[in-house]
Amino acid sequence: MAAPDPYRELRDRLIDAELLFPTGVEGLYGRSQTYQEIVAAIDRMVHRWGTELKATAVYLPPVLARRTFDSTNYLQSFPDLMGSVHVFRGNDREHAELVRRVEADGDWPALLEPGEVVLSSAACHALYPMCRGRLPVGGRRYEVSGFCFRHEPSPDPARMQAFNMHEVVYVGDHDVAQRHRDEGLAHGLGLLGELGLEVTPVPANDPFFGRLGSALAAGQIEEELKLEGVTPICSEDKPTAIISGNCHRDHFGLPFGIETDAGEVAHSACVAFGVDRVTVALLVRHGLDPAEWPGSVRARLFR
Amino acid sequence: MAAPDPYRELRDRLIDAELLFPTGVEGLYGRSQTYQEIVAAIDRMVHRWGTELKATAVYLPPVLARRTFDSTNYLQSFPDLMGSVHVFRGNDREHAELVRRVEADGDWPALLEPGEVVLSSAACHALYPMCRGRLPVGGRRYEVSGFCFRHEPSPDPARMQAFNMHEVVYVGDHDVAQRHRDEGLAHGLGLLGELGLEVTPVPANDPFFGRLGSALAAGQIEEELKLEGVTPICSEDKPTAIISGNCHRDHFGLPFGIETDAGEVAHSACVAFGVDRVTVALLVRHGLDPAEWPGSVRARLFR
Repeated sequence: MAAPDPYRELRDRLIDAELLFPTGVEGLYGRSQTYQEIVAAIDRMVHRWGTELKATAVYLPPVLARRTFDSTNYLQSFPDLMGSVHVFRGNDREHAELVRRVEADGDWPALLEPGEVVLSSAACHALYPMCRGRLPVGGRRYEVSGFCFRHEPSPDPARMQAFNMHEVVYVGDHDVAQRHRDEGLAHGLGLLGELGLEVTPVPANDPFFGRLGSALAAGQIEEELKLEGVTPICSEDKPTAIISGNCHRDHFGLPFGIETDAGEVAHSACVAFGVDRVTVALLVRHGLDPAEWPGSVRARLFR
Repeated sequence: MAAPDPYRELRDRLIDAELLFPTGVEGLYGRSQTYQEIVAAIDRMVHRWGTELKATAVYLPPVLARRTFDSTNYLQSFPDLMGSVHVFRGNDREHAELVRRVEADGDWPALLEPGEVVLSSAACHALYPMCRGRLPVGGRRYEVSGFCFRHEPSPDPARMQAFNMHEVVYVGDHDVAQRHRDEGLAHGLGLLGELGLEVTPVPANDPFFGRLGSALAAGQIEEELKLEGVTPICSEDKPTAIISGNCHRDHFGLPFGIETDAGEVAHSACVAFGVDRVTVALLVRHGLDPAEWPGSVRARLFR
């Protein structure tokens, strides 16, 4: 008998409880009313914080302008995770050939063309072109939210292909960006702690692709550009990141032409809540029926 | 001087009011807090109705299993509207070639492969595989909601490429499906009327592609399989559909193997709210600041 797989077990529990509905694709689920109400409550929690920071809220569609995507360097760093949207621009004759090839299992993708969009790679990516030019004194704060996509099919219910990300972003001065990440992550960890989650900050790296990627990852850890808050979901040994704090330095300010009021290339930083991961973490921590959660957690979350 | 374009004018007004944020792609916008609160209120309104009908709510991600999509016949009918998600499954060497081709403007899509998903073509499409098999007596009702995609770049702010759709769906007996569409659409028109919108039901057709499509469209109108509720947004002459009622007959029951309790192929029908279109219609009808909307509309919507 195979060893029990804690990821599949949790996924099956969430499906049996009708919190998630399977779609036949790993890491892609429909969500129940109960699940969605937790997601919405986490979004409201982050929004209350964004409001305190006088952040401008931007709710994003699940697709991103391809031109924006191309400037993020994502294809260079994470080609295996992206989703490129391809469309059909042919005529009647080409349509007949498209249908024929699909049915014959032939090379029909060759008849499609890249569309104007890709699947959203990160909520904040759509933001940077909106910041182009000279920023006001002190920079700007934004709160961005939406569905993101990562092509990493997995039975782990905390590793979805399509998932909600809610970020609080600062764009502006170098030192303020660093402080936004450090103080912001501490604040975010506090909010999650108030929900009864035990979240530990750890240095982390993005999942850079390939041989070159290993060097990039090592550098990112060395310079502490990325910190994650991790909590046990399926495993105590391999806790799951449910929040991250990221110093982008000039990674976005440079290609998107964003300048501080002093005319320097703007830095940016974000604190990103993995809303679906927080949702799953809460269900594991407090039980699958939110009506039975501790009163203090309910009072903080569902207000 | 060119004649004023009422679609561009409205889009620019919504952007100037910071209700929508442009992304550089026609029909793709970030949404403000104010805009999003209207969207959420419409979703709650439809959910209250779904709850009265004892419908199961399923909130869907913005991508759909490709295998499901392939069974809907969408590629045959609406190839020009779909978005196919393509992914990179290569190694280091192929990644280097991918990056080289992107920078050289070469044939890099050829290095991608179709992923497990496509952009969601309609909220209800994800539902049918979940219904496979024998239904209980009386069939089932669902309420499904999520971002859908149509590749039709347009300056009309009521014709977005990525937009929210919220449907109330019946799957089961033939006569109940027909009644669900007829009575459900009437109920939906009533809900929109209570929000101060003047919505007129008209026979309609789906935007079938190409030469063959014209015949399909004519048949659909002749048999009154699709009705739309239209309201003036940018034009009195060309009002915009903001809700539709659709009899699918066995279009989904057959390929997805859904049977009534009596063992017949199930019929399905849906009443679909174009949530973004309703939002834009409300902003045009009552003004760009919801705080100034009539008290009766506010009371009904924001509760």
